[in-house]
Amino acid sequence: MDKERFEKQLAFILEADKEKNILRQTHITGYARRENDAEHAWHMAMMIYLLKEYSNEEFDVAKAMMMALIHDIVEIDAGDTYAYDTAALETQKEREERAAERIYGLLPDDQRDELRALFDEFEAGETPEARFAKTMDNFQPLLLNDSNGGADWREHKVIKSKVVGRQQRNILGSKEIWEYTSALIDENVKKGNIKDE
Amino acid sequence: MDKERFEKQLAFILEADKEKNILRQTHITGYARRENDAEHAWHMAMMIYLLKEYSNEEFDVAKAMMMALIHDIVEIDAGDTYAYDTAALETQKEREERAAERIYGLLPDDQRDELRALFDEFEAGETPEARFAKTMDNFQPLLLNDSNGGADWREHKVIKSKVVGRQQRNILGSKEIWEYTSALIDENVKKGNIKDE
Repeated sequence: MDKERFEKQLAFILEADKEKNILRQTHITGYARRENDAEHAWHMAMMIYLLKEYSNEEFDVAKAMMMALIHDIVEIDAGDTYAYDTAALETQKEREERAAERIYGLLPDDQRDELRALFDEFEAGETPEARFAKTMDNFQPLLLNDSNGGADWREHKVIKSKVVGRQQRNILGSKEIWEYTSALIDENVKKGNIKDE
Repeated sequence: MDKERFEKQLAFILEADKEKNILRQTHITGYARRENDAEHAWHMAMMIYLLKEYSNEEFDVAKAMMMALIHDIVEIDAGDTYAYDTAALETQKEREERAAERIYGLLPDDQRDELRALFDEFEAGETPEARFAKTMDNFQPLLLNDSNGGADWREHKVIKSKVVGRQQRNILGSKEIWEYTSALIDENVKKGNIKDE
């Protein structure tokens, strides 16, 4: 074992632990508290494996799962940016770029490059792995929120066009899941959980 | 899409969410609070990917990661059993068996069988995937605990033979990680974090 290499890997693993403190807007089922980034990533990775049959394209499952596990690591420095917060969205790219540089930089060079490339690939959303991982990134909080009677949407007075605007990108990863999602959104509009302006 | 099938998959995914409420004895870095099962599984899966070069044998990374993600799901019903709690360890098998039956049973039959087999394979620890996943299952809390100055060991007055007894099984997954772990245990004995009876 190259001890210096191993300790760089451990430094990254311990730094990643801080994701457990980054809270998202979404609440866990039962609405007891907000979900954190590590929990979200765990759930997403599991969903990639369980729902892979609905992907529009064949994809490398281990790669997509790892993408999911690390895609929010930048939020350790950059914070969580709520999907419907327009002001924060404007500075998100720059904040996350600096964070990626620092945090992936803790790894040995080859793994720094590999994980940075995985993260960039996820962000770009132009490969089958990234498309399906992004679909799960959108579908997972929608599922939790729906299970909580749409409480997160109601709290933020979210309007239908915003939800559709985000969720309809799922069509790129899974036409079938997008169709299911679309019906779920309509149901939540009917119930008054999402505002139909 | 077979909607009945999809909704069984979603029922399992939502049930799994409850892992976020199952607390372990280990604290997250910084010692602010105890870690939950979902966070532990996320961390473990990431470690499988990042540290795979230290495995004694080649293995299927996606399979081992999925094993890690789901290995504690039985604790939703059976609770977390602390590695050094002898009384609870006696009833653990039976409690976890009933839980596996119910929770994996939420899935469509093929995935119920697949995940149940993955869980059993992990428990048996007789394949390269299970051996490396189990090594990460032991190494992840040790790493957090070491980063917290051994506070979890001190709180439970854990003795060296117990820590070694558990951790030395890591030799089956990774001789190199076991060597590193062994030195880390000795350091924590020297510091008085682990009792050398």
